[in-house]
Amino acid sequence: MDKVAVDAMGGDLGPRAVIGGCAKALAAHQHLSIILHGDEAVLQPLLSGLPGAARDRLSLVHASDTVSMQDKPGHVMRHGRETSMWSAIAALKTGEAAAAVSCGNTGALMAVSMLQLRRMEGVSRPAIACLWPSRGRHGFSTMLDAGADVKAEAADLLAYAIMGATYFRNDFDEPRPRVGLLNVGTEEHKGRAEIKAAHDLIARHQETGRYDYVGFVEGSDLPDERVDVIVTDGFTGNVALKTGEGTAKLIGEFLGETFRSGWVPMLGGLLARRALTRLSQRIDPRQVNGGVFLGLNGTVVKSHGSADATGVAAAIGLAAKLAGSGYRGRMAERLVIAAQASQDAPKGDGA
Amino acid sequence: MDKVAVDAMGGDLGPRAVIGGCAKALAAHQHLSIILHGDEAVLQPLLSGLPGAARDRLSLVHASDTVSMQDKPGHVMRHGRETSMWSAIAALKTGEAAAAVSCGNTGALMAVSMLQLRRMEGVSRPAIACLWPSRGRHGFSTMLDAGADVKAEAADLLAYAIMGATYFRNDFDEPRPRVGLLNVGTEEHKGRAEIKAAHDLIARHQETGRYDYVGFVEGSDLPDERVDVIVTDGFTGNVALKTGEGTAKLIGEFLGETFRSGWVPMLGGLLARRALTRLSQRIDPRQVNGGVFLGLNGTVVKSHGSADATGVAAAIGLAAKLAGSGYRGRMAERLVIAAQASQDAPKGDGA
Repeated sequence: MDKVAVDAMGGDLGPRAVIGGCAKALAAHQHLSIILHGDEAVLQPLLSGLPGAARDRLSLVHASDTVSMQDKPGHVMRHGRETSMWSAIAALKTGEAAAAVSCGNTGALMAVSMLQLRRMEGVSRPAIACLWPSRGRHGFSTMLDAGADVKAEAADLLAYAIMGATYFRNDFDEPRPRVGLLNVGTEEHKGRAEIKAAHDLIARHQETGRYDYVGFVEGSDLPDERVDVIVTDGFTGNVALKTGEGTAKLIGEFLGETFRSGWVPMLGGLLARRALTRLSQRIDPRQVNGGVFLGLNGTVVKSHGSADATGVAAAIGLAAKLAGSGYRGRMAERLVIAAQASQDAPKGDGA
Repeated sequence: MDKVAVDAMGGDLGPRAVIGGCAKALAAHQHLSIILHGDEAVLQPLLSGLPGAARDRLSLVHASDTVSMQDKPGHVMRHGRETSMWSAIAALKTGEAAAAVSCGNTGALMAVSMLQLRRMEGVSRPAIACLWPSRGRHGFSTMLDAGADVKAEAADLLAYAIMGATYFRNDFDEPRPRVGLLNVGTEEHKGRAEIKAAHDLIARHQETGRYDYVGFVEGSDLPDERVDVIVTDGFTGNVALKTGEGTAKLIGEFLGETFRSGWVPMLGGLLARRALTRLSQRIDPRQVNGGVFLGLNGTVVKSHGSADATGVAAAIGLAAKLAGSGYRGRMAERLVIAAQASQDAPKGDGA
């Protein structure tokens, strides 16, 4: 059984959407069991509507309090012990669950996860990895950090390269992922100082991390076939992720207007409807919902705050898959080798 | 006559595309005249193909050298006096032209422009402003900096707000543009230190800059109706711009595959063809081609390096429009007021 702890509260659509997602995930994965964390008085009535088969693999742990989207991470770290988010992560720490999922406040989730699970050796900034629809061989690329931290030094970016490559290798069965470093141009002389330093570090550690480094990539390369893993700081990554989502949504709206602009295009849209539905699924962020926290001693998946049942189910499915894969052990090994190599290496400034 | 200096060399598609763009622009704008800068031996034969009406309003200034996409800005500043790029900007400085256009190396163009034209008073980092397709009232938003500098301090971001608002007001006849500051969330406590400082500065200078400040915005808000001008540093802005373009291109490709996936969707696509063409024009970056350099004593438009004749014509049209508008005088006034207010104001740290 893959046991996943789910924070039932804190998503924009409330616990009903989360429980709907649990039901979908339980129906899709026979070896999944879920521990739901949240307010019993709210959740118990919602559970009664579930089919018996799903109900058997779902248990409930009461938590009286909820983290809101407005709560500051520091506040939750100090006063959040009674929240459903804290409780879900605690289940990971005690080993009751093998992975945890929450739709709640990203900053608070990262803070609570770091506090309880601690960082892996060699990691000073954990990262959030997300999937990006791509024209590449696997249909997706991975970008990290998508928003765990607003800054990243060169050593952090190297850790992201190693973590991202391990994650991508695990998820897509790709022996040698190609890693690119996000910059404002592909020429060697461009970018900020920490990015130029990271460029050298990531190139030097290709064998440690078992990836091929393709060099600098630009925003337009995020869906490109020449790269599998895109490394960047969490500020830039978060802006890129939301810009991509926003652009896709805008074009979707424009496309809808196009087909409603007269009866001839409307007929065209009807004829192409099934193909267009497949297209919208292909670029629907709900289908690949879930940012994975990398660099912690535990597997935490952050679902989109506005995720509906389909989105929540995708995040739970991802958590279950990761829980069973053992990727963290392999990641830890490579991070330790890279950290040791950096300590042993002569410093670039001649010291 | 609106006189525009055009750098004929340095675009990815070579001088033929630039001259094609000149011909299109001359045909579309009766009050436009163009001074073409570049290698006479290359350009003269290409010009002979132009219609006489266009040829009459086009003159040629010889420049023997060309800036390549690989040249470093510093190198061009020291050794670039014989290049077509330098020559086009010099025509602005001497007053022979009222605006300049180049498809060449962005970093070199900014460096050469700063060196010859100098920065406006109160501006320490000039910026590149670009247009973004939007669901807002004017169909576009403006984002800056799209990549002039990889860094921006709080005072730079305030200057971007003032410059962007003036530019947007001029371009869309909008008395009170709404300004937003790009961040990883809309909550007050999020983001980097310089962004929190800029948040306060931009809010304080709403009357100086004659804009309404809507606060923090996210990547997904770039096409949103609640904001007209999006302010960010040039690293983040460049990644966002290219991510948006890359996403639009990917969806366009997926859409093409959708309509080719069988004969029923193909028939649908044929019926909707005219409406789909209008859609692709609406999101085609060539139609709004041209990043405008703001904060210099002269109007310089950077066309996309890969621009074809349609794209080059759009950039020249934009330059001509700006040249005649007098927006720089109004911008200069507000920048000076803001700079003086910052000097007079008590420092936040109590000094």
